[in-house]
Order: sequence, then structure tokens, then C-alpha cells
Amino acid sequence: MAEYSVTIASTLTALIVERKYNTVRDILVTMNPSDIAYIFAELEEDRLPLFFRLLPKELAAETFVEMEPEAQEVLIRAFSDSELRDVINEMYVDDAVDLIEEMPANVVKRILSQADPQLRKEINEILRYPENSAGSIMTTEYVSLRPAMTVGEAILRIRRTGYDKETIYTCYVTRDRTLLGLVTVKDLLLAEDDEMPISEIMETNIISINTHADQEEVAQMFSKYNFLAFPVVDAEYRMVGIVTFDDAMDVMEDEATEDIELMSGMMPSENTYLRSSVFELFKNRILWLMLMMVSATFTGMIINGFEGALPFVLTAFIPMLMGTGGNSGSQSSVTVIRALSLSELEFSDFWLVVWKEIRTAVLCGIALAIACFAKLLLIDNLLLGNDEITYWVAAVVCITMALTVLLAKIIGAMLPMLAKKIGLDPAVMASPFITTIVDALSLLVYFFIANALLL
Amino acid sequence: MAEYSVTIASTLTALIVERKYNTVRDILVTMNPSDIAYIFAELEEDRLPLFFRLLPKELAAETFVEMEPEAQEVLIRAFSDSELRDVINEMYVDDAVDLIEEMPANVVKRILSQADPQLRKEINEILRYPENSAGSIMTTEYVSLRPAMTVGEAILRIRRTGYDKETIYTCYVTRDRTLLGLVTVKDLLLAEDDEMPISEIMETNIISINTHADQEEVAQMFSKYNFLAFPVVDAEYRMVGIVTFDDAMDVMEDEATEDIELMSGMMPSENTYLRSSVFELFKNRILWLMLMMVSATFTGMIINGFEGALPFVLTAFIPMLMGTGGNSGSQSSVTVIRALSLSELEFSDFWLVVWKEIRTAVLCGIALAIACFAKLLLIDNLLLGNDEITYWVAAVVCITMALTVLLAKIIGAMLPMLAKKIGLDPAVMASPFITTIVDALSLLVYFFIANALLL
Repeated sequence: MAEYSVTIASTLTALIVERKYNTVRDILVTMNPSDIAYIFAELEEDRLPLFFRLLPKELAAETFVEMEPEAQEVLIRAFSDSELRDVINEMYVDDAVDLIEEMPANVVKRILSQADPQLRKEINEILRYPENSAGSIMTTEYVSLRPAMTVGEAILRIRRTGYDKETIYTCYVTRDRTLLGLVTVKDLLLAEDDEMPISEIMETNIISINTHADQEEVAQMFSKYNFLAFPVVDAEYRMVGIVTFDDAMDVMEDEATEDIELMSGMMPSENTYLRSSVFELFKNRILWLMLMMVSATFTGMIINGFEGALPFVLTAFIPMLMGTGGNSGSQSSVTVIRALSLSELEFSDFWLVVWKEIRTAVLCGIALAIACFAKLLLIDNLLLGNDEITYWVAAVVCITMALTVLLAKIIGAMLPMLAKKIGLDPAVMASPFITTIVDALSLLVYFFIANALLL
Repeated sequence: MAEYSVTIASTLTALIVERKYNTVRDILVTMNPSDIAYIFAELEEDRLPLFFRLLPKELAAETFVEMEPEAQEVLIRAFSDSELRDVINEMYVDDAVDLIEEMPANVVKRILSQADPQLRKEINEILRYPENSAGSIMTTEYVSLRPAMTVGEAILRIRRTGYDKETIYTCYVTRDRTLLGLVTVKDLLLAEDDEMPISEIMETNIISINTHADQEEVAQMFSKYNFLAFPVVDAEYRMVGIVTFDDAMDVMEDEATEDIELMSGMMPSENTYLRSSVFELFKNRILWLMLMMVSATFTGMIINGFEGALPFVLTAFIPMLMGTGGNSGSQSSVTVIRALSLSELEFSDFWLVVWKEIRTAVLCGIALAIACFAKLLLIDNLLLGNDEITYWVAAVVCITMALTVLLAKIIGAMLPMLAKKIGLDPAVMASPFITTIVDALSLLVYFFIANALLL
């Protein structure tokens, strides 16, 4: 897509240089707003307003929503007040809120001054909710119906008021703002009798989300129930908005990215990779690197502590033992973290998980130890003629390996679950953290076993 | 949820033991199919058919779809032919296909023998498509309209045929099965004139998916365009089915899990953690552990090669240097892999990414080296009185650290992009793989610099 949009962008630029504005417009109107936004991203910044002004009003507003914040800022600065008003007031409330959250203060002020009073009020309401809460990602534009309406009246109401609603397909039945039930357009269209009151066909077993629920929880509800939208209610069960599936999809992607970043020892980033500055990348990465470096000092102290007490030949196996331990531990921790994220596991499964990991570790440990033993004696000793690798040395290495795998998998499985229990993000208990602990433990096991068998 | 459903399950079991079937039914009918399936998962296996038979027909079929394959198999084996027929023929085609893919051969045979001829034909059509393709996750139950129909006729057709369609909200306009355009129910309801022909209000700029497109591509289209459904077409642009957003959400979760597993050195699993046997876990994990163990031999050989040539004090810093290198490299590789997965990066961004990583690495490397230098001289030398750590030793360690971070970040960023270019899954190029390469390189750098500065 990126290369393809560069080509189109240069074609369009050539046409603009030749002042063939109508041709450009004819090309653009055949396209989807997302695609136009992709292409506009490839244009030179100072040409952007010119292109944008060629779009018909509605398509312009839809395209604006799909653009990156940088381009949006360029456009807003180029807009006249009336152009800004047209774009802002075509937007859904949740999109307007997203925009405002990305813009610098002076631009926000201008946006709010051009928004209709009703929109401004709704924007300010949503901005009140904590970041990453259901309230902060909801929209207040939904279709509400009264319980006494008939099916026919409800359809009429949708036809009259549906135009600027984010979704019309799920409608909410309320009385004094209290949520009583919901009906889908499918229910309405397939209802046999247009005179039937809504209260008789509405679904009253409603699954709603509290305004303060975490957005991760919201995303999980979508993936569990396959609904198009969920109603968002306040503490008094008054309906305040809806969250739609497209917002949930964005949240799912963001949450998976955040987990992956934490698991790899990085602070979650606010921006996409290409939009992050070098300094942001540095800031997100340096903390864990420093922590890991300092904690690796312990492994160094252990090695120093055993200095001279053991044959040098054992030193050469330290990287292999630490590596195998680290990999085993991170396999277990990552598996458990992901299962916790998807709610496949809970803390009550603790012993079940530990027991499963112990059995898996025994299988992995034995397989690795046998392979390692054979390799040390057949390749290193026989083939390469390294006489220092005796049966006893090989035994020390392989027993350490099996024990390290066992320890690593138990720790790797337990720590994320314990983190969850005490309210930490389990994703922090992944590779870098587990590796550091396992490194130190595997060295202690190694020297202890070497001491017992070789001296 | 898990603990809560255990409670409900035991309440329901108590009621069943007292033969209060109507009470159980009254409780169950107030619930959502997903919730009933969760609760049923906690029941003893032999009670499951009894509970299931209490559900009204439609709710029973909806609940069945939400259950785990093991429970589904238990039920099918307990079903009479007519019960099986009722459940199967209430299912959407794509759900029936999912079921068939999970069941053993003799159960599949029974399912197909009870399916209506039309459903059986559609199931067999979908089963023809390659695993993980758009064709394999689509459903063939969509609303199709003719271009000459009026808005009023279209609404009538939806009301007549919509009942067993997976979604009625996006309707597809076809002629001789060729896809001409689409209209949403919103367009139809908000149309000003019921006599207007569909061909005049339909959207003709359609984004469709080829039957053989990879499901990951499908999920990305949903996250880009925010549509409820995409049409699936064959090579001749004939409409064969639709993919809906709920399938795309499942795919998004599965693909993120697969990436995370590959990144942590595991083969992607077919089952959830709790449903995987110990042997499956072992199988998925042992391959990479073996590979890593064998490749760690190289680091061992490097250490052996320098045996005795360097002061022993340097050995104690090997874990810290290798750890920092590994963590730095996996930060970069994981960031790049995730950005590639989300299509935020392409191969054409190669040099841009490398240049960004070089600058980030220089910042991280310098910060780490300064911190390390200070720590070695102030704590280890002055405070702990370790005389072996001279200025020169500290310099060797810190210069190696900075260079290792640089190498690790460049390699970590380059390998996933190169893997993508040659058609491999970039996720393979994550922590375990990168760490092994960086381990060996950092040792070589260490010994080279030590040789140059200390001897």
C-alpha cells in the first residue's frame, strides 16, 4: 500500500501542477476515506490544504478523521473558521475527542470555539472520564427509543434521527435516561407486526459497561459476545453513551502491542514506530536496560565468589546454561501472560498451571540434558579431542541444565500470576525480568553441583 | 468470571438434584448464550445433556456455538438424530464449519448426515478453501439484492429473508453472481424515496477480499476500514460470501498470540493453554530450546579460544554484557516485528529504521556505559575494594557494552525486515534468535577490545 500510494500521490501532484483540478477531484471521489488519507500522507505538506479543498464536504470530513495527527494539525492551521466549523461539526463526538487529545492547546481552543454548543458540551463530558476508561472511548450519539413506541414508530424515528448517529443498528430503550432494554434494527425489520410496542420485543437482559471500566475489559467483552456495540452506563444505571466494535478493535491492537512491549522490557509507547522520535524510543527502552544491567551484577558477584575454586572448563558452558534457562523461563512466562490477557487463565488456576509447567519442564529438561550429554561426549570430547570434558564434567553441565529448565519454568509460570494477584501488569514478568532471576539461580545451581561432583 | 460461574454451576446442580427443572430453565433463559456456555463448562460432563435439553430450541443452538469443542462433542454423542438436526440447522454456515474442523471423523460424518442438503453443500464449499484463508472463515449467508429493485422492495426482501442471515446490515447488489455494489440498511432506511432504484444509491467503490487472501490480511482490512463486513469474491469477481467483524476479531487475537509465541521461541499452539496437553506444550517448546542450546556452543567455543589469554576478572562481566546485548536487541526486533504485523512498516522503510535504531542505540549505549563506568569504579573498586577493577578494565567493559548495544539494535532491526522480504515470518527473528547472535558477537568484541587495551 505504501509504495502504491506514493505512485498515486505523484500522479495527483503532477495533475495539480497542470491545474487539472477537476480530474483530481474525479479520481478522489471514487476512493474510500481511509485510502485518500493514506495517499494524502505522501503529499508535500504545503500542498495538502489545496488537495483537501477539492473533496466534497462530507468526504472531506470523513477523510480528515482518518488522517494522522500531524496532517490534521497542518490542515487545521490552514483552515478558515468556516472550513474548520464544517469539518468539526461533521465528526462523531468520539472522533472529535480523539482529535482534541492529540492537538496542542492553542489548536484545541480554536476547535472548541468552532464546535456547535451541543457538540462542545458532549466533547467536554467525554473529556471528563479517566484516560483508557470506557467513558473516554464511548460516543454519545446513539439512537434512543421509548418503551411505549410501536415498531413502526421506532423505525420512523430511526429514519428521522439516524443520520448523525454512529450506529443505528442497536437502539436503546430508556425512560428518564435509565436503560431498560435494547432492540436491534434486525428485530424491528423482522418484527411481524408494526403496531407491537417496543417494550414487548426489546431484549431486557442487557450487558452494559460502566463508564469507569478499563478499555481492556471493554475489548474483551466484544471478543466474548460478538456484539456491534455495548451501552455505557453510569453508577446509577443511566445510559450515557455507547462503545462500538471499531473502537474495540483499536483497543485490542493497542493492548496487544502494549503487552508485547512490556514483555520485551520496554515502556509502552504512545506513538507508532515511525512517529516516535529517537529520544522517545531511548526513554522507553533505557529504564529496563539499566535495571537489567544493575541486576546482572549479582550474576557477576556469584562468578567472582567462585573464582579459582572450579576448573576453568566449566566457564565455557555458562552462556549455554544461562541461555537455555532464560529461554525456558520466558516461554512459560509469555504463555501464561498471554492466557491471562485473554482471560483464559485466572489466579484460581495457579496450582494447575504450576503442575502443568513442572511436567512440561521435566520432559524438556530430560530431552535437553540427553542431547547435551551426547553432544559433549561425542563431538567435544571424541571428535574435537577436548580432554577436559570428562564424564563428570558432562554430568555437572547436564544435571544443571535439567534443573535450570525446571526452575525457570516454575518461576516463569508463577511470577505473572502472582503479579496479577497483587494488581501489577503480568506482562512485566516476562523475558528480561525472568531471565535475570534465572541467570543468578542457574549459576548457583551450577557451582553447587560442580562442587558436589567434581571436588 | 471463572469463580462466579463455578458458584452458579453448583447452584444449578443443586436445583437439578432436587428435580427443580423449571427453576433452572427460568434462570437460564435470562442469560446470554456466551454466559450459559461459561457456566456449562463448570458442570460435570454427564449432567451436561440434561441441562442442555432444558434450553429453548433457539437459545440451545446459540449456546452450543459458544461452547468448547470437548463439551460440544459430549453433547453430540448424547444427542438423538433429531436433536442434532435441530442444533446443526440453526447454526450459521461458518460456525458449522468451525465445529466440523474440531470434531473427530465419525462425529463429522454424523453431523453432515443430519445437515439439510443446502447447508451440507455450503459447508463442503467452505471446507474446500485453504486453512487460514478468507474463504475458510467466511459465511455464505448474506443478503443479496438486484440492481433494479427499489429501496422499498429491498427493505421488503430483507424483512422476508433476513432471519437466517449472519448480518442484514450490509447487503450486496449482484447480477449473475457478479458483485456490482453494496447498500447498508442505514442507506435504505435513510433514503428519501422508497421508489428509488438500488442501482442509484448503491456504493460501487467496493473493497472486496479474494477467497485465497490470508486471514491476517482480512483482519488488517477490518482494522483499517472499520466496516461491519467485507464481501469475499473469487478470481472472476463473483460474490461467494462475507466475512464479518466478529470473525476478524477472533483472527486478530489469534494472530497476536501466534506472533507472541513465535517471538518467545515457541511453535504456535492450536489450543488454549488449559486445553493443551503437557506433550503438546513440550513439542511446541523443545525445538527452539534445542536449537538455542546447540548455537550457544559457539559462545562456549569463543570463551575456550581465549582461555588463559585474559585476566579472570573479565569473566565475571560476561553475563552482564551478554544480557544487556540480548535485551537491547530484542527491544529493537520486537518493536520492528510488531510494526510489520500492523503494516505500519514496510521493507521500503529499511534504511529509515536502521538509521533510527543507530541513533537510539548511541543514546542507550552512552547512557549505559557511563552508568556502568561509574558503578564499577565507585562501588566495586572504591566501596567494595576490588583492586582488580582498574580504569582500564572498566574502560574495556564499558566500551564493549556501548558497542554491543549498537550491534544488537542494528541486527535486531534488520533481521525481521529481511525475513519479511524473503517471505519468512518476521516474528521468528525475535529474542531467542537475536540473543544467540548477539551473545557470540558481544564476546568477540569483548575479547578484541580487552586484547587491544589490556595487553
